[in-house]
Amino acid sequence: MPDIRSIPAATVPPARRGSLVVQKYGGSSVADAEGIMRVARRVVATRRAGDEVVVVVSAMGDTTDELVELAAQVSPDPGGREFDMLLSAGERISMALLAMAITALGHEARSFTGRQAGVITEPVHNGARIVEMAPDRILAALDAGSVPIVAGFQGVARETDTVTTLGRGGSDTTAVALAAALGARVCEIYTDVDGVFTADPRVAGKARKIDEISAVDMLELASAGSRVLLARCVEYARRHRVPLHVRSSFSGRDGTWVRDRQRSPEPSEPREPREGETEEMEDAIISGVAHDTSVARITVLDVPEGAGNAMRILRAVADAGIHLDLWARHTSTLSFTVPEAHGRAAVAALRRMRDDIGFRDVRHDTAVGKVSLVGAGIAADPRVTALFFEALDTAGAEVFMASTAQVRITALTREDDIAKAVLALHTAFGLDSDSGEAVVYAGSGR
Amino acid sequence: MPDIRSIPAATVPPARRGSLVVQKYGGSSVADAEGIMRVARRVVATRRAGDEVVVVVSAMGDTTDELVELAAQVSPDPGGREFDMLLSAGERISMALLAMAITALGHEARSFTGRQAGVITEPVHNGARIVEMAPDRILAALDAGSVPIVAGFQGVARETDTVTTLGRGGSDTTAVALAAALGARVCEIYTDVDGVFTADPRVAGKARKIDEISAVDMLELASAGSRVLLARCVEYARRHRVPLHVRSSFSGRDGTWVRDRQRSPEPSEPREPREGETEEMEDAIISGVAHDTSVARITVLDVPEGAGNAMRILRAVADAGIHLDLWARHTSTLSFTVPEAHGRAAVAALRRMRDDIGFRDVRHDTAVGKVSLVGAGIAADPRVTALFFEALDTAGAEVFMASTAQVRITALTREDDIAKAVLALHTAFGLDSDSGEAVVYAGSGR
Repeated sequence: MPDIRSIPAATVPPARRGSLVVQKYGGSSVADAEGIMRVARRVVATRRAGDEVVVVVSAMGDTTDELVELAAQVSPDPGGREFDMLLSAGERISMALLAMAITALGHEARSFTGRQAGVITEPVHNGARIVEMAPDRILAALDAGSVPIVAGFQGVARETDTVTTLGRGGSDTTAVALAAALGARVCEIYTDVDGVFTADPRVAGKARKIDEISAVDMLELASAGSRVLLARCVEYARRHRVPLHVRSSFSGRDGTWVRDRQRSPEPSEPREPREGETEEMEDAIISGVAHDTSVARITVLDVPEGAGNAMRILRAVADAGIHLDLWARHTSTLSFTVPEAHGRAAVAALRRMRDDIGFRDVRHDTAVGKVSLVGAGIAADPRVTALFFEALDTAGAEVFMASTAQVRITALTREDDIAKAVLALHTAFGLDSDSGEAVVYAGSGR
Repeated sequence: MPDIRSIPAATVPPARRGSLVVQKYGGSSVADAEGIMRVARRVVATRRAGDEVVVVVSAMGDTTDELVELAAQVSPDPGGREFDMLLSAGERISMALLAMAITALGHEARSFTGRQAGVITEPVHNGARIVEMAPDRILAALDAGSVPIVAGFQGVARETDTVTTLGRGGSDTTAVALAAALGARVCEIYTDVDGVFTADPRVAGKARKIDEISAVDMLELASAGSRVLLARCVEYARRHRVPLHVRSSFSGRDGTWVRDRQRSPEPSEPREPREGETEEMEDAIISGVAHDTSVARITVLDVPEGAGNAMRILRAVADAGIHLDLWARHTSTLSFTVPEAHGRAAVAALRRMRDDIGFRDVRHDTAVGKVSLVGAGIAADPRVTALFFEALDTAGAEVFMASTAQVRITALTREDDIAKAVLALHTAFGLDSDSGEAVVYAGSGR
């Protein structure tokens, strides 16, 4: 499910500022002085081409990991207020260096912290929602002809005047929130890959870059395991109608545009397939294949009869703050998936209830993974579902559980079978490129 | 001369908060996780002993140097606003880590940036003066039983809401300003040496730690080359009557107290020496020997007669923003000293005036150094001056220029002769300890 915690209350959308581009650069793009210079040249080139630019930066390279490691060395439980203060230092370094580098190229630039940029969040730490955008100083800087450089990932809680951070993918969220508040023409998310691919190129060598994808499909790809964009950022962009352009900071090539297409991506009800539609479906409607091996399967054995028992088990997991994904019941056995990191906690929560509910045992298996096919109209076309299971079966990937949503089918299989499942689906749905080339594929940082 | 740029307008002194100690830890004290833990334990021990504590921290170890180096890599001229933003990140890291470490030891601690701590400066960058202290949030944290951890070296310009930095020795200045504003009993400056010594222990093996020194003497030692405390911080403490205690964060030993003694350190007029006073002078009045090799001697040859010419030369140097120290005139030759880093600029400023004034040439010599004797009553006792020159002469250190102030005599000699000059004065004025041990001697960071 998309994480939509960061959506502010509905605001009056600003007038579109057609000449404005918001550019977000991840940690890998500003990993060292050379990277910062490269980004500075790109910003200046955009400016010279006639656009106004607002830049959002992440911390340099591994800075955040290093700070997290330092925190772990001085405290067994380094969360809360001080953790946000610590991590927020990373973006201050990269943004100040980038502003200097742009200034050295002859363009005026000024950096702004989250607070200075008007990123107001709720007063919680280590994952706050944005509640208001008040980018007055950014607008003033733009009007003065300057390039504002904004620290990603951070905001301020107005009640306490303390630094907060936005959680995973926070810099992308900052960029999209600024693009929405300023009415930017596009929010460009720069990363170290060429865009969003039809599958992870490390797994599917013939994966190809997607030129354009709907926000709804992108949302499903992200929640199914594609790590280039986080679901939270895509959802924010969709709600505020901000076109996203995911692209590489290492090349000048176009990346992947995420924006609503003209036709509706969600047909309102199932219909009969028409002749020749398979062709169109394969070429245009299926967006890609995603996978995620960071899941665990929990199996509860011999759950006693009684309508309330399954519900009590699921509620115990939810009450422990653990997100439940697929679930299935077969006779007296209940299975479901949770994020791998929460597997032990889920088991512990259930063990405490064993005598109370009366089930026999609970088991925990991390050697599983999910593979998903994403595309508009999947739910409307039973042939897609049939081909999906047929391809997995032919490839020898056993399916333990599966679910179908409007634009996605997901199957749980053995972790060892994930690669062949991805390849099989990629080929079966006509996604293979002729000139498939391996591309290093990584997250977009925070 | 002491740098007194950072003295705010006179304010009503707060009521003394007798239980409050302000502790400042330099970069060498918080260089790594181990150092941060050591500082945390010391803070908690102070707290458990019944005192309230406010902590001021510098950036970790070489962080500042690394940030400066990064800035140099992306910009040929990385000054101004962005440089302050960049450098201020260093203290945010150390203060957040220290707050976490103290919390992990079971005491509540919260970190505050310069802005949050109410350090208001003038709106200039890379060396701003504090114009106001408004530590409301620090007081509130203290009243709530928390240990406030404050970022040294940084403040905020109220007019522009931008981060500023206080320049060299800025963290010491933050600590003293907070101690003054909060009415602390003492401001403890923790460093990697045991205190202020009677001479640089790397030069004089028998140098011994000074247990107590007047602010006036400390000021002269600092301006004459002692690097443990900067003159600016001492002057600030003196004006606001804040006792300083310079000590090591690596030991529990008492260091050097800087506070006004009961007797006046500055006799109002010269008087006849009394019998037996030499003994007392040597034991108690002479504070120490300082030296400084970062000076250059400028010599202007064949300056034409005319009262205004010497003044025009000195003014040309001052107009170039260069601080002039010793100066002397012998027949038509004018000599003076400037900081070594400004030597070339001084020569360039003078060359531009050569035809105008009509002198023959200007020369520049960096192989010189200053040695100073500091102690109360020096100006009042001609025997001190006599012994000073006699000791240098016996040691073979040629004196080019000299000056005598109320509590200091300074001589300019060859850089190669500085070490023997320091040793000779240290012995002649009875400063040698019997158990002299070499101690690593370094600056207190920023």
